[in-house]
Amino acid sequence: MNFRIPRGTVDLMPGEVEKWQYIEEKARDLCRRYHFSEIRTPIFEQTELFQRGVGETTDIVEKEMYTFTDRGGRSLTLRPEGTAGVVRSFVEKKIFGEPQPTKWFYIGPMYRYERPQAGRQRQFHQFGIEVFGTTDPALDAELIDLGWQFYRSVGLEGVKVDLNSVGCPECRPVHRTRLIEYLTPHKEALCKDCLSRLDRNPMRILDCKNESCQRVTEHAPRMVDHLCENCRPHFESVKESLDLLGVDYRLNTRLVRGLDYYTQTAFEFILEGQGGQAGSVGGGGRYNGLVEEIGGPEMPAIGFGLGLERVMLALESQKVELPLSKEVDCFLVTLGEEAKKCSITLLKELRQAGCSAERDYLDRKMKGQLKAADRAHARFVAILGENELKENRIVVKEMATGEQEAIQLNKLVEYVRQVRKG
Amino acid sequence: MNFRIPRGTVDLMPGEVEKWQYIEEKARDLCRRYHFSEIRTPIFEQTELFQRGVGETTDIVEKEMYTFTDRGGRSLTLRPEGTAGVVRSFVEKKIFGEPQPTKWFYIGPMYRYERPQAGRQRQFHQFGIEVFGTTDPALDAELIDLGWQFYRSVGLEGVKVDLNSVGCPECRPVHRTRLIEYLTPHKEALCKDCLSRLDRNPMRILDCKNESCQRVTEHAPRMVDHLCENCRPHFESVKESLDLLGVDYRLNTRLVRGLDYYTQTAFEFILEGQGGQAGSVGGGGRYNGLVEEIGGPEMPAIGFGLGLERVMLALESQKVELPLSKEVDCFLVTLGEEAKKCSITLLKELRQAGCSAERDYLDRKMKGQLKAADRAHARFVAILGENELKENRIVVKEMATGEQEAIQLNKLVEYVRQVRKG
Repeated sequence: MNFRIPRGTVDLMPGEVEKWQYIEEKARDLCRRYHFSEIRTPIFEQTELFQRGVGETTDIVEKEMYTFTDRGGRSLTLRPEGTAGVVRSFVEKKIFGEPQPTKWFYIGPMYRYERPQAGRQRQFHQFGIEVFGTTDPALDAELIDLGWQFYRSVGLEGVKVDLNSVGCPECRPVHRTRLIEYLTPHKEALCKDCLSRLDRNPMRILDCKNESCQRVTEHAPRMVDHLCENCRPHFESVKESLDLLGVDYRLNTRLVRGLDYYTQTAFEFILEGQGGQAGSVGGGGRYNGLVEEIGGPEMPAIGFGLGLERVMLALESQKVELPLSKEVDCFLVTLGEEAKKCSITLLKELRQAGCSAERDYLDRKMKGQLKAADRAHARFVAILGENELKENRIVVKEMATGEQEAIQLNKLVEYVRQVRKG
Repeated sequence: MNFRIPRGTVDLMPGEVEKWQYIEEKARDLCRRYHFSEIRTPIFEQTELFQRGVGETTDIVEKEMYTFTDRGGRSLTLRPEGTAGVVRSFVEKKIFGEPQPTKWFYIGPMYRYERPQAGRQRQFHQFGIEVFGTTDPALDAELIDLGWQFYRSVGLEGVKVDLNSVGCPECRPVHRTRLIEYLTPHKEALCKDCLSRLDRNPMRILDCKNESCQRVTEHAPRMVDHLCENCRPHFESVKESLDLLGVDYRLNTRLVRGLDYYTQTAFEFILEGQGGQAGSVGGGGRYNGLVEEIGGPEMPAIGFGLGLERVMLALESQKVELPLSKEVDCFLVTLGEEAKKCSITLLKELRQAGCSAERDYLDRKMKGQLKAADRAHARFVAILGENELKENRIVVKEMATGEQEAIQLNKLVEYVRQVRKG
């Protein structure tokens, strides 16, 4: 029987996984500086949470969820995104009753049943941020800056920010009416999907990639021209803060968010591809209505979610060399039974001193052991034979230079440790 | 609508999650020293993999798996343990064709539908090790030592190692026959479960917690007395290496592993509870037959899995204080619009210099901002008012001592950074 990995998932193997560790560490370190705390919610939640929190009529909920019934008869769903679970936790734990703002981040796997392709897996990973309890527009800008810094911190170049405001339940209906008025005479030029959006959700038509639809909407009324007296200064202030922070952003009035509880700031991180196509690598926005939707009080919130598979692809296409160390500090080569026995405790002492240390486990001859040391990217090889053992000495060889010297056996740990430290 | 977290799962909240980060980092650092590389396999696998790899007749497979059918009609299961997926990857990626040994570790969530109780969640977490490609008994001992060191490295005391050998397909049948001969006359004293085990898997009877069964098996034939000429010296050598490494172990001849492909070394990490009861916090052993079972070549292997929830519980019950820093390096307090605007870039500069920095986002007055600084465990508060701004100065106050001084505004970042470094 040959077992295969489930379609749309991958094993992150040694060699690859160190890159993930690296970018996760970068994300965590950025969050520390920006004073965000990690939260970890379960991989699955009640199915209804996503129906409510992501939206019943979205592609995700309609077609892409991993939903199942557990042995107790409950309908559970593997999380297709990170926000709903975090908001559920914020509400269930009554964090809204504590002094605000609440600044959280998460890193972890998400699940969507989609057609797998480069950068799109059924199990994929996101780094996300959620802030609750403040409407301060400078915070919106800081959040965008954090995301932008993340891409730069891992070595990516050319990430730009697309920015828009989608208004609020007060000003959006005005824009919506104007938009329907404008689009209705051009009905025939809209694609089938957009035709059905015309009544339900006309703003999504602005977002359509269909050329004909894009031509129709080119001069359509823009949300940013219809912002109310709350939303307009908020948006102006976000832009002012982004300027202060030096973030490379541009207005994209086609940028919309699908659901009613999204408000004001909407943004996406766009990366110019090698072939000239630009693609979104992450995005977010305010969702001042979501906490209430999930059963909490009225409470402003904003967040983003960045796709880590996209980051990995981009790192590859930009040929970024991450500064990963594969090196083993010391590889012990032994000759004879006594030396091998001695290496067991030597190895432990090296490791206890903080060094990475390795030896051969297949009774290889000298030459084979040295080859294994090479494969392990050993910085030093320490050779212990019967003669050395008798004289309480060990031969240390630096692999890069080929230089070697015999030192006292009980000085080995200190020797390797000193060089390791620097 | 109030949404609740699925039964048997928990949110790891800020304050708690830092402890998890800490023990995960300890595990990762130990693995680096011991030259293990991380591997990450998907959260779900084909259901058959676990039927084969964990065993059709085990409680896990019969009663505890989260199994579901995906939209493509495939039966998938959330992994109930970590080994099967890792072995699947080892075989599918043909890693067995590369120079051995292969030394991998994993950390992540696992899923079993069990009755939730303290230290037992339906989503739980394990730190696991798998080594392929060597039968070197000193490696068995090193692995046990690594697990033992892990508990010590996070600050736990009193973890002991229970050790046994369960033989191999050559010597086990001999012991099995002797065991059945010995137990059959005592049939009546066995519990119902053990009675049914008598023919199927008599070794499991040694493991039964029932008092009557334990009395019956007290003088039963022991596997260690029936080891073949391969298994006996292997076991002796494991013990010798453990002695060299200074590991606190004891022979426990009742320790068995459920399935046929487990061979030779079996071990458990036992922690004396506060109330005097001892409990297993993790365990492992050799499974020289598993790689073949999963479709690979004949290939020795050994591993362990440690339950991290158990570690957390034990840390709590032993009142271990983990050395976690909750401190924010600098909290900016501002008075007036100009100062607030200035704080946006100051904050960014502090963060870019590697410092954690924070400010108020709710337009609080001076007193409220200082309170927020307190809640954020700020080491320094930097106060910027209109007068300071005019003079290009900022007042820096160390919260622990109450000492404060006015410094040049453009010296703030360096000031905080220097103190942070040390």
